[in-house]
Amino acid sequence: MNQSYALISVYDKTGCLELARELAARQIRILSTGGTARYLAENGLEVIQVSDLTQFPEIFHGRVKTLHPLIEGGILFRREIPEDQADQARLGIPSIDYVICNLYPFESVVNRPGAEHDEIIENIDIGGPTMLRAAAKNYRHVVVLTRSEDYLFMIDKLKNGQAVTTEERLVLASKAFAHTSYYDGLIFHYLNREPLDKVPHFSLPVRREVELRYGENPHQQACFFAKGYRSGGLPYVQCHGKELSYNNMLDMNVAYQMIGEFSRPAAVIIKHNNPCGLAVGETIRQAFEKARDGDPLSAYGGIIAVNRPVEADLAELINEFFNECLLAPDYSDQAMELLKKKKNRRVLKMRDCPTETYPTLTDICGGFLMQTRDRGFPELDSMQLMSGQPLSAGQFDDIGLALVAVKYAKSNAITIVNQGMLIGIGAGQTSRVDSVKIAIRKSQENQHSLSGAILASDAFFPFRDNIDYCAPYGLSGIIQPGGSTRDEEVIEAARQHGISMYFTQIRHFKH
Amino acid sequence: MNQSYALISVYDKTGCLELARELAARQIRILSTGGTARYLAENGLEVIQVSDLTQFPEIFHGRVKTLHPLIEGGILFRREIPEDQADQARLGIPSIDYVICNLYPFESVVNRPGAEHDEIIENIDIGGPTMLRAAAKNYRHVVVLTRSEDYLFMIDKLKNGQAVTTEERLVLASKAFAHTSYYDGLIFHYLNREPLDKVPHFSLPVRREVELRYGENPHQQACFFAKGYRSGGLPYVQCHGKELSYNNMLDMNVAYQMIGEFSRPAAVIIKHNNPCGLAVGETIRQAFEKARDGDPLSAYGGIIAVNRPVEADLAELINEFFNECLLAPDYSDQAMELLKKKKNRRVLKMRDCPTETYPTLTDICGGFLMQTRDRGFPELDSMQLMSGQPLSAGQFDDIGLALVAVKYAKSNAITIVNQGMLIGIGAGQTSRVDSVKIAIRKSQENQHSLSGAILASDAFFPFRDNIDYCAPYGLSGIIQPGGSTRDEEVIEAARQHGISMYFTQIRHFKH
Repeated sequence: MNQSYALISVYDKTGCLELARELAARQIRILSTGGTARYLAENGLEVIQVSDLTQFPEIFHGRVKTLHPLIEGGILFRREIPEDQADQARLGIPSIDYVICNLYPFESVVNRPGAEHDEIIENIDIGGPTMLRAAAKNYRHVVVLTRSEDYLFMIDKLKNGQAVTTEERLVLASKAFAHTSYYDGLIFHYLNREPLDKVPHFSLPVRREVELRYGENPHQQACFFAKGYRSGGLPYVQCHGKELSYNNMLDMNVAYQMIGEFSRPAAVIIKHNNPCGLAVGETIRQAFEKARDGDPLSAYGGIIAVNRPVEADLAELINEFFNECLLAPDYSDQAMELLKKKKNRRVLKMRDCPTETYPTLTDICGGFLMQTRDRGFPELDSMQLMSGQPLSAGQFDDIGLALVAVKYAKSNAITIVNQGMLIGIGAGQTSRVDSVKIAIRKSQENQHSLSGAILASDAFFPFRDNIDYCAPYGLSGIIQPGGSTRDEEVIEAARQHGISMYFTQIRHFKH
Repeated sequence: MNQSYALISVYDKTGCLELARELAARQIRILSTGGTARYLAENGLEVIQVSDLTQFPEIFHGRVKTLHPLIEGGILFRREIPEDQADQARLGIPSIDYVICNLYPFESVVNRPGAEHDEIIENIDIGGPTMLRAAAKNYRHVVVLTRSEDYLFMIDKLKNGQAVTTEERLVLASKAFAHTSYYDGLIFHYLNREPLDKVPHFSLPVRREVELRYGENPHQQACFFAKGYRSGGLPYVQCHGKELSYNNMLDMNVAYQMIGEFSRPAAVIIKHNNPCGLAVGETIRQAFEKARDGDPLSAYGGIIAVNRPVEADLAELINEFFNECLLAPDYSDQAMELLKKKKNRRVLKMRDCPTETYPTLTDICGGFLMQTRDRGFPELDSMQLMSGQPLSAGQFDDIGLALVAVKYAKSNAITIVNQGMLIGIGAGQTSRVDSVKIAIRKSQENQHSLSGAILASDAFFPFRDNIDYCAPYGLSGIIQPGGSTRDEEVIEAARQHGISMYFTQIRHFKH
């Protein structure tokens, strides 16, 4: 029988010594390079340097160490094929049956603030992935270990005198390719300068970050995978409360983005992925009260986000009714103490992280729809007045608010704002006039005055019935992109009812 | 100055001869292996065999050809560093300034029906990715070419006597890592046997398949990327009409999945990602008529899907009103001829492809929520009757229909079905009772009888107001998962109004 070798070449040395000892104790010879070889030797192991075996020196400051046919051949030869056996014997190729290897820390270097390009490039490992890939390809004969958790599995096997089964070696091979595909995905996203929708093929590296109890429904399994590029990871950290659910995270995503649209004190309440409260105020406390009072029934059990630090007075208000999550840039100590009294409500603090610029993906059967983010927003000054009198500066503030709300609501969406407060919303309808009816009914049910209010639509009105329906309620302005073949008819309706209608030219469908 | 070498090792030989000729004509020596070397030599080029240069034979049936320090070192050495120059000169390492390489066709082999595991594994390229990665890492000094489109770019440069700039070499390096990350992603997804949500990190290989004019809105760029695994790609092919839009594809995804839930003749109409029509019938024509008549106003401009071949009579009916897309398993010649008369409507045919089993991803800031698909569906026989009389077999058919509709509608969702036809839907609301009100109003506006109808809810009713609101309309049954702390109060309301209430235990949130 062939002398068996284990090739050990690791950047992260955690756990490799124990594994090397167990292997060596079973007459498996240890082959190694550079720092790993030194480390193992210093700890009393007999190590064969790869360069001694190949009679070829390490060159270029370690850029080429293991890339040699005696090494790669020792991993790749097919143990069951007579020709391969003959080649092996003739050329003195060692039988490398174990490959223990992890890679230069490209990920931690690329994510380190201020890392230089040259250092990042130098941390692209070439020899390591080759060994891992070769060993994984030849998994029938070679055990490939790249995670220290798997070292323990191997140590166990050795101690119990058990062979690693073919199925187990296949699992390890799969892990090796999970790792190399992730690693090269990171490198691609670092090097890439093209818009992603112009790249013919690539991969998206993801790493599991949060385990979730279940998905949208209890019968679905779920977790959160952080993007392994552009400093992925959730844009907030949890300070208190039970673990976030899938639906919390989905709603937080909308809340986080919406609140980022405001510089004035603003509060938003999300329910079932739609805003049910949104307001601005002189203070954050006032903004929150107005957001809550927009639709108090829907606000129950919702997700709250504010864009100012939370002080004790606001914390007390928020504690007064049941809400699932609270997101803010910061909390005073006293506020946090108060908020922690509610065991079930999650308290989250925004993390300093870059604005998402990458396109978004939507999973459909067979693939992903990719699109650039909806960064469009009308220049309020340059909107066209199509009917009625120009609106006041205060009403323009309401227009801005109504447009943010309609942009983040599911289509077809209609929002109504009065005096810095969202007072009605109709979202997710298959006909636009239904959304109008719902938004008006909601504002009436909650006893809000429609007099002087602004109504915004995420897309054009197909017929004048929408405008006619609004007429009796005293709205001041209707804001819409325009673009229907019946625009003239719609504008005429607004003119007849004395409503100021503005066209934005920018549609905001969101499904 | 060093003699310059180009290493050419390609599986797909398209365009490599022209490039090799241009390189050779400029005194760049061609290094090559195996089939590529033969092909170039047969076409009159002077080729140096890698094995002649390294004095090491190709071994193991070509498994190890280029993995040699003289080759990898020739790619990787840092041209500007004196120590590297000294090593290079001393060891006779060639200056490999061009790497032209593409890989064993793992993708086409793995996707070929009936491909054997051994053949698939043999098509994992080891030497090729190593060369590509090494060249891309050393992009400051090495030009890496892996796509025949890029050969043309290089030929142009050579013909015009222009150097490839550092920026251009970086773009090429990025393409190389796009390719290796995609390739290893494919291999991982082939080898992987674990549920994806249990894998700590990996990558998702995607390939651009459909360019789209724009995204959800005209100011967003978009395209469709097919999954590069599990036979990704759209589950339909287009037979007629202008190109699909982003929103069409989004709606088609729901239509395709919904229609797959039925074995009886069924038709569905989708608008803004929600069903606005759904019906079963004795014939597909009847099913379509009932789906259309559920809410004719919303059906206008919608996406239609049917689960039976379309014949001429149905094609005529469908031509009678404006719809954006039609999806069916097949079309008679006569039907297709009729359908083609409408230039703007897309006609699509379902493709035979495997059911999606992979978890779905939802893009949120910083990462992806991953969850297994909502495959849950209540066993109708084992639903618990909580109030009133047991319903008839016919009403149980309506329950099934109402539950499919509510499963695919956006939450909070309420659907009402009568006699095999969806007659009312309230979706996407932030409070459940609003969805109830909308669903009832819709059925009344469209003059449908609620007498004997079934109402389904995607989640439990939080209060009895929902049931009280329904009381005057003569519904027979209300179907809901149950699970509220106020279930008793809700059941009591149903009992008082003489409505049969069933609990399914299965929630169907969808956002």
